[in-house]
Amino acid sequence: MSTARTDAEVRVVVWNEGVHEERNHPEWIRDIYPAGLHGAIAEGLSEHLPQARVRTATLASTPDHGLTEEVLADTDVLLWWGHAAHEQVDDAVVERVHRHVLGGMGFIGLHSAHYSKVFTRLMGTTCSLAWRNEGERELVWATDPSHPIARGVANPVVIEKQEMYGEPFGIPNPDEVVFLSTFAGGEVFRSGVTYRRGQGRVFYFSPGDQEYPVYHHPEVRKVLANGVLWAHQPGLERLTGDELGCTNPPRRF
Amino acid sequence: MSTARTDAEVRVVVWNEGVHEERNHPEWIRDIYPAGLHGAIAEGLSEHLPQARVRTATLASTPDHGLTEEVLADTDVLLWWGHAAHEQVDDAVVERVHRHVLGGMGFIGLHSAHYSKVFTRLMGTTCSLAWRNEGERELVWATDPSHPIARGVANPVVIEKQEMYGEPFGIPNPDEVVFLSTFAGGEVFRSGVTYRRGQGRVFYFSPGDQEYPVYHHPEVRKVLANGVLWAHQPGLERLTGDELGCTNPPRRF
Amino acid sequence: MSTARTDAEVRVVVWNEGVHEERNHPEWIRDIYPAGLHGAIAEGLSEHLPQARVRTATLASTPDHGLTEEVLADTDVLLWWGHAAHEQVDDAVVERVHRHVLGGMGFIGLHSAHYSKVFTRLMGTTCSLAWRNEGERELVWATDPSHPIARGVANPVVIEKQEMYGEPFGIPNPDEVVFLSTFAGGEVFRSGVTYRRGQGRVFYFSPGDQEYPVYHHPEVRKVLANGVLWAHQPGLERLTGDELGCTNPPRRF
Amino acid sequence: MSTARTDAEVRVVVWNEGVHEERNHPEWIRDIYPAGLHGAIAEGLSEHLPQARVRTATLASTPDHGLTEEVLADTDVLLWWGHAAHEQVDDAVVERVHRHVLGGMGFIGLHSAHYSKVFTRLMGTTCSLAWRNEGERELVWATDPSHPIARGVANPVVIEKQEMYGEPFGIPNPDEVVFLSTFAGGEVFRSGVTYRRGQGRVFYFSPGDQEYPVYHHPEVRKVLANGVLWAHQPGLERLTGDELGCTNPPRRF
Repeated sequence: MSTARTDAEVRVVVWNEGVHEERNHPEWIRDIYPAGLHGAIAEGLSEHLPQARVRTATLASTPDHGLTEEVLADTDVLLWWGHAAHEQVDDAVVERVHRHVLGGMGFIGLHSAHYSKVFTRLMGTTCSLAWRNEGERELVWATDPSHPIARGVANPVVIEKQEMYGEPFGIPNPDEVVFLSTFAGGEVFRSGVTYRRGQGRVFYFSPGDQEYPVYHHPEVRKVLANGVLWAHQPGLERLTGDELGCTNPPRRF
Repeated sequence: MSTARTDAEVRVVVWNEGVHEERNHPEWIRDIYPAGLHGAIAEGLSEHLPQARVRTATLASTPDHGLTEEVLADTDVLLWWGHAAHEQVDDAVVERVHRHVLGGMGFIGLHSAHYSKVFTRLMGTTCSLAWRNEGERELVWATDPSHPIARGVANPVVIEKQEMYGEPFGIPNPDEVVFLSTFAGGEVFRSGVTYRRGQGRVFYFSPGDQEYPVYHHPEVRKVLANGVLWAHQPGLERLTGDELGCTNPPRRF
Repeated sequence: MSTARTDAEVRVVVWNEGVHEERNHPEWIRDIYPAGLHGAIAEGLSEHLPQARVRTATLASTPDHGLTEEVLADTDVLLWWGHAAHEQVDDAVVERVHRHVLGGMGFIGLHSAHYSKVFTRLMGTTCSLAWRNEGERELVWATDPSHPIARGVANPVVIEKQEMYGEPFGIPNPDEVVFLSTFAGGEVFRSGVTYRRGQGRVFYFSPGDQEYPVYHHPEVRKVLANGVLWAHQPGLERLTGDELGCTNPPRRF
Repeated sequence: MSTARTDAEVRVVVWNEGVHEERNHPEWIRDIYPAGLHGAIAEGLSEHLPQARVRTATLASTPDHGLTEEVLADTDVLLWWGHAAHEQVDDAVVERVHRHVLGGMGFIGLHSAHYSKVFTRLMGTTCSLAWRNEGERELVWATDPSHPIARGVANPVVIEKQEMYGEPFGIPNPDEVVFLSTFAGGEVFRSGVTYRRGQGRVFYFSPGDQEYPVYHHPEVRKVLANGVLWAHQPGLERLTGDELGCTNPPRRF
């Protein structure tokens, strides 16, 4: 018996386009991510959430990149990694994912997913940013270490080599800024932000890249596990498309 | 010389789909809106902002529903009324308007424009609501009468007959809730809300319908004029599409 | 085993000044609240949260109005009802409660507690409002029925007789507006709002008055029980005063 | 004739406790601030806002630290610098300043004023932070360079030597985060944040210290001038204490 949220019934899908892995780009990607970026992310979640059901899917998964209506209806939290192939994601799938988020599915956008079709659609803005890939040290600071996503995480998280993502970040004013990152080159980035969109909870977390082993970092894994528990809303009645539309109630009072 | 904002250089476009007028639907629409909904809205703005340049355009305007790149680049604030023909608005025009808002053009969504392509794209959510059209009295209350959009406006604004729009309203948490409306039937609605999106300021204001002479209401006209001045950002350098993208700065520090 | 939050370990204190009860004001207060306002509130919480530990205290409780350091350190969520005797609450107790909220204790302000020393201190604003006591019908609408505090609650909650509280409500822009109330007289009020303050979660809920049996209303009781679970943060490490101060870390990077 | 805000009618008071100057602490304070911190701040404002009326006052000013009812009623924006003598500020003066901010006076808190009585009262939280005084380089980045306070300011502002202020910063979730600072030691801070409190606009800006000539920095001066214009609300009807209280309107509808 516990009053804290647990992982007992969390149903997770880690989606990765999987294109960098196919192209062996960078050349060392299979050295650091032998099971793909999605494999490393899923492994980290399973470490922290041993009872959760964690599945993966990629752009090449069939049908529908692995994101059918049935799969999404059976998913509490979807994590999304994409970079080189945003445009190849089918618009009907984007529409479906978007609808499920508004209906209550949690969504975690990872790193270059800032430019994914789903995330930009949820935000309604450019989601553009400044970037520089020189393997700089990133420090990830919590503005509120007691936030459920930051709890139990080192403050700061030290990532020895990362791509720099910097401000201005073209997003709507977040509901919460959980993490702020600084880089060796002096830049700053709102690296962990949350939004409520419809019934769904959205978390964007920028650390993580195909060139660096960031998804093996124990503290990054802890953040993502916390994010999954935060985005999961046990007991929520998920809505489908029709129920998300307008209603025309009679006068009652 | 004054330190307050004035209307001297505000360039406004009032866009209306104009379909109800064409269809004479309702039958009395030409009685209450002889110059169309856009005509009445533009008239009200010109009353309050005599030096502003107020133009109108409709779905039938050519080319591009009257919203070419040249027109938008020459517009400080765009007001949008639509209801029956959201789907007929060309996606390329929607894309263009969206880009100009993110680049700094003000946008005011009116009444049933909650479901317009531009507004839902800016919001990223369903924008659905409850509605009932029985000509109920609407009272529009300011949560903060000193807000620039509410200043000098009766509190409440009393609208004798209106369509009811009620919660839940499927929008992101607004930056500001300026107005809350109650209806004779007891419902409530966040009827005046603001957002910052990119460099642009967005205001949604729900009073106004093709069946009722709401856009002749002096207080509603005052709100819209205030809204135009609020959404206008004199001195702002408007960005175009390219400048809204990612940047790749060298290391400087 | 469930992943939802439960009441198993929630330690609650319902605080009520208890002055109206002492004065028999109104004359019928003992008819509707034989165990005091605090008694009715506590009863409702225990109905919904049978495993929670619910205690009560009043202005007359000794020492320190029942709110010693030991009691607060042993409290997860404090509910506060006050009206006639805000000024009689000892400033040292206010300071203590404020510190515990910032350290992570949940706080629920009820009705006329909008003017309590603790609530106004947490808000930093006037917290003033419009009021009229004519026993009007209040309808309490959820802006988002899936919010944890609104979940499972009738929408709207219908309260046959209540004091009217209306806008403008002099509070900071809330993190979330969970409920909006309308009154028979047409007024509107942000009747359920949430804030994060320090590590603590704050919920203000306006329905409830010494003249009406609102705290016996089943839906109001459900809201308060939901509010307690929402304000409770299982697993949070509570901070004490010293830990809330500035730190002077050495350079590490 | 311009529609942009100008400085023609801005009435500014720069308040500085003036204690470091009296104590010659640090020894070189008179070298970098011969006219006091307030003198340098006022000089910078006058450079950018030549038509503004800029006055100064200190803890030693009589009566009431120079902040009488008459002075405040004649002030549009008050800037506040304090560090060593927060406790010596008379509570009645704090109450008065607080009331004027809620009534519509702009307030700009500077650097160590995070711990001033007025600022903590407006925030309702600890306002604590991490600090280290080793003369580190601070980079001040705009999250939105088009914000009125950031407009025309170098991005980033480079301050060669400054005290480090770092997260977690114990403030409520800001309405806007305008600036984020990074430090040579890798820390991060929300160094420019805005709030609406009552009718007043509040801006906190952290750069500036008694040991470094930060208030001579041209870009810092530009930020403060922008902040003054932003916090000033021309045409606003200032409220006094009585008008900030509750109202008891009759039923009208």
